[in-house]
Amino acid sequence: MCYNLGMDNVFSKIIRGEIPCYKIYEDEKNLAFLDIAPESKGHTLVIPKANVDKVYELDDEDYDALFHAVKKIAKHMEDVLGVRILMKVVGTDVPHAHVHLMPLDPMWKHGRTLKLSEAEFKEIQDKLAF
Amino acid sequence: MCYNLGMDNVFSKIIRGEIPCYKIYEDEKNLAFLDIAPESKGHTLVIPKANVDKVYELDDEDYDALFHAVKKIAKHMEDVLGVRILMKVVGTDVPHAHVHLMPLDPMWKHGRTLKLSEAEFKEIQDKLAF
Repeated sequence: MCYNLGMDNVFSKIIRGEIPCYKIYEDEKNLAFLDIAPESKGHTLVIPKANVDKVYELDDEDYDALFHAVKKIAKHMEDVLGVRILMKVVGTDVPHAHVHLMPLDPMWKHGRTLKLSEAEFKEIQDKLAF
Repeated sequence: MCYNLGMDNVFSKIIRGEIPCYKIYEDEKNLAFLDIAPESKGHTLVIPKANVDKVYELDDEDYDALFHAVKKIAKHMEDVLGVRILMKVVGTDVPHAHVHLMPLDPMWKHGRTLKLSEAEFKEIQDKLAF
């Protein structure tokens, strides 16, 4: 499928390397990095490099690739962190398809955002990065 | 994969036909039906017939089949209802993997449940059923 790769939002800038991120995982079609407004420690975003607004607009190949990456990352996060991983594909904030993976730790509460220092982000990144 | 098909929760009872549902879609591996505590009109649950707690515990074949069904149903719901479809895989309420598909209509508000009559459920079922 031919996507519009020129769209300008925070996620396309992260994909192009114009904005830094705490990267967890990358393959040819997908990128995963820590959410900078996490609802729990380790809250990760998995995004396709293809620039679409809604996940179900991805073509079948890219859609499969995204959800295979999501499964692999979710299992890895559960292994490393020892807690259940929640998955949300809400996507009304940034107009680029994205899947939230949130560790369901005892501190987690829907909609409450943690303030983490750069050192804390880096510590989590070191734990979770592939 | 060999799953435990004997687990007793509301979703395994719906799959076995012991509890009725407003069915939207069914294939060999998946079932979709209206959520009886909907956050918006058309709020649908898509579940694998395989009895696992977390979606990422499904084997690759069943996981792919689930997300293919999710994509097909989400696009169909958007076509019929004319609004964006939110997707949530939270799964801490019923211990059987399930994907929420929620039409993002102007009335939608996270966590607020609509009270619908049986006639209203049937009207939505008629609109959305494959």
